[in-house]
Amino acid sequence: MERERRFGYTELPERTMSETMGKRVAVIGAGPSGLAQLRAFQSAKAGGAEIPEIVCYEKQDDWGGLWNYTWRTGTDEFGEPVHCSMYRYLWSNGPKEGLEFADYSFEAHFGKQIASYPPREVLFDYIEGRVKKAGVRDWIRFRTPVRRVDFDDSTGLFAVTAHDLANDVESTESFDHVVVATGHFSTPNVPHFDGLDRFNGRVLHAHDFRDAVEFKDKDILIIGTSYSAEDIGSQCWKYGCKSVTVSHRTAAMGYDWPDNWKEVPLLQKVEGNTCTFKDGSTADVDAIILCTGYLHHFPFMAPELCLKTANRLAAADLYKGVVWVDNPKLFYLGMQDQWYTFNMFDGQAWYVRDVIMDRIEVPDREARAADVADREAREDAIEDDYGAIRYQGDYVKELIAETDYPSFDVDGANEAFFQWKKHKKQNIMTFRDNCYRSVMTGSMAPVHHTPWVEAMDDSMASYLLNE
Amino acid sequence: MERERRFGYTELPERTMSETMGKRVAVIGAGPSGLAQLRAFQSAKAGGAEIPEIVCYEKQDDWGGLWNYTWRTGTDEFGEPVHCSMYRYLWSNGPKEGLEFADYSFEAHFGKQIASYPPREVLFDYIEGRVKKAGVRDWIRFRTPVRRVDFDDSTGLFAVTAHDLANDVESTESFDHVVVATGHFSTPNVPHFDGLDRFNGRVLHAHDFRDAVEFKDKDILIIGTSYSAEDIGSQCWKYGCKSVTVSHRTAAMGYDWPDNWKEVPLLQKVEGNTCTFKDGSTADVDAIILCTGYLHHFPFMAPELCLKTANRLAAADLYKGVVWVDNPKLFYLGMQDQWYTFNMFDGQAWYVRDVIMDRIEVPDREARAADVADREAREDAIEDDYGAIRYQGDYVKELIAETDYPSFDVDGANEAFFQWKKHKKQNIMTFRDNCYRSVMTGSMAPVHHTPWVEAMDDSMASYLLNE
Repeated sequence: MERERRFGYTELPERTMSETMGKRVAVIGAGPSGLAQLRAFQSAKAGGAEIPEIVCYEKQDDWGGLWNYTWRTGTDEFGEPVHCSMYRYLWSNGPKEGLEFADYSFEAHFGKQIASYPPREVLFDYIEGRVKKAGVRDWIRFRTPVRRVDFDDSTGLFAVTAHDLANDVESTESFDHVVVATGHFSTPNVPHFDGLDRFNGRVLHAHDFRDAVEFKDKDILIIGTSYSAEDIGSQCWKYGCKSVTVSHRTAAMGYDWPDNWKEVPLLQKVEGNTCTFKDGSTADVDAIILCTGYLHHFPFMAPELCLKTANRLAAADLYKGVVWVDNPKLFYLGMQDQWYTFNMFDGQAWYVRDVIMDRIEVPDREARAADVADREAREDAIEDDYGAIRYQGDYVKELIAETDYPSFDVDGANEAFFQWKKHKKQNIMTFRDNCYRSVMTGSMAPVHHTPWVEAMDDSMASYLLNE
Repeated sequence: MERERRFGYTELPERTMSETMGKRVAVIGAGPSGLAQLRAFQSAKAGGAEIPEIVCYEKQDDWGGLWNYTWRTGTDEFGEPVHCSMYRYLWSNGPKEGLEFADYSFEAHFGKQIASYPPREVLFDYIEGRVKKAGVRDWIRFRTPVRRVDFDDSTGLFAVTAHDLANDVESTESFDHVVVATGHFSTPNVPHFDGLDRFNGRVLHAHDFRDAVEFKDKDILIIGTSYSAEDIGSQCWKYGCKSVTVSHRTAAMGYDWPDNWKEVPLLQKVEGNTCTFKDGSTADVDAIILCTGYLHHFPFMAPELCLKTANRLAAADLYKGVVWVDNPKLFYLGMQDQWYTFNMFDGQAWYVRDVIMDRIEVPDREARAADVADREAREDAIEDDYGAIRYQGDYVKELIAETDYPSFDVDGANEAFFQWKKHKKQNIMTFRDNCYRSVMTGSMAPVHHTPWVEAMDDSMASYLLNE
């Protein structure tokens, strides 16, 4: 894409200004991607533009999405499925240098550079810092899950039905645009294994994992090989579980695990506490943690508006990764499999904002579908994780080239991811002790005062003790 | 109510026959109350009556409601909240002589009389036996949660939107009547206590309790004093937990508990693993089980159709305990606090059937509201549990007097409940070893071959070994 397509606020034609006025936009979700959308509009407003009316619906009682920790599992106090998949003692599993906001650096927020793998509380504070400063909290209706989104062809408007839980009032409002930013790491994908109904221990999905201390001195079985498996296993190990067995469907993770770990083929059956794997080997375990991924789940969307996609880099049916091919008034943010996160959501949110504000023109349906097909073909040709990181880095570049989101050194961020992968391969239990250079400010992260394996205190106060 | 109001099928006027034809009825839920509704209509059909078209929507993959056990907690494989609150090794906590179907005795089903406190598998088999024989399974759309029920004043019809999960198809159909039979023991009521977010063990609601063996050798804290508290505590004790501490808001249960039990006032705060109670006493525990009840939760009902009631004998806004006061085309089954269960659901289902089939006339709104007020006032005047049992027994009598549901000795069933309460008071760990007389067949239940505290095998095969 050409840089020329990027408009500055002062270049807006009068037509766009007037059309933007009076428009209403519903943003569903106030997590990292929904907040990016609010910040994108607020940034335009701060630049002097007329922006649409924004209503952000949030099911939880606070912003931050997955970064808003709760001890609850299952359903919340209003009977709504708990959004949180977050657990205690979680530290970022990728370097903060890969997710830093281009318009709000860690140094700007904390007044100094901080170490590269912050715990949850630190990242929550960082996410919150930007939107507090932006002053967008009043745009959010907390404790208000969306029940239904429909589109009326005759009026060209969406009807959004939401339930204000605190006041127990349901209402339906009309919107010109809907931005779905509800994430895809909240509804667990939970396969069945023979005998789980007779297992004499706890079976849980990663979504319901809260405190590794609960598994101290226990033999645990983890099913899966992605981030949840790797990190929940590491947490349990760090906090004193007796052994970790990890069962994979296709291939072992292959890290140089501690002595009380083993990787085994797929679970075949459970009898009492004995698990039998595909190679005939067995393990007696106290708990089974299903790290088997999440579903893209939007039960509130009318069928014709409902995204159905695998968890992949080129999400299905989304032009530019965000515009619903069949109806370009509808957008989804952050629905890709992710190397990039916060700053990619920003790129998407700025792009969506500019489509809504008529700064960017969306082509016809055929061209939109061709764009998706092209992204899929290019993803299918990727050979390895390094290629996948570059692919998603290129996508971030593409988005920010079309908007006024501050440009940054994406190749440098790619490099942080490459280093991260090497550090994990070197030692999966010490990779978080490494430091990377911010591509936003150019400064190097300090070494954390305590190696991760010894750092039991995950509080922000402790983390910020670094000089 | 006068017995004269009870119609036999052969007495139906022609008008009723023709109006019944072509009617469509949606039954939501295929648990004990929904199945009672199907059986009620099938029974009329077997008697030669013309019945409406029945569509029963069921979220789960099988019938039986709470009696359909799953190891799953949280959300199911389609991302729907798990309905099941059932746990392994559950034995009926009340005598089967209080819940026996009047049209299908335990002896008729099992070919012999069985002991009085059957485990889950036995009760599931019994529930299923009647509806298998009735041949109503084809009326049920499994794996099809209802998303929305609206009523159109202009047409006088309900629009029911449901999602066929297996085929991923959403559809909306029109119905003359809706019967909500989704139960009210599936959406947990989960209060917060200070420090739960930092507790170093598992916090769960009774809804997510599955296997007592998981708590072997553990110190557990139970919050609550109702059936879940009593029975989950007893299960954990039976299967070898180290200690049980039960925290109450208002009053202790006061049974003669085993030595490793204690009852304490309400939990005030949690610090690490230490729980502090209102009297200043403390307990160090490994797990906290919230037996804090359930919500009446119908997020799929339009607000003006949505039951909002406390868990009480006289459920709010339901004429005769089943007819929605504001719209008598809508019914709710089994929404009361319950001493009586299966046969009360039957009484309700037969009554609802007869309203739908114009065999029973529902009075005007004022009279309906007066009926509810009267029930509430009478409930408020009840002095103790014995009075509550009689109150609900009278309600069952009232319902069956108005329909052709087989009459039975409700006073005799009351007496079984009275005995049950005395047996629990005598010894909370041996009350299930007692036997009662069936009010349906007059025969006495046999003594079970193994005392409950020693009976670790809860299979149907084992239970039926009684002679």
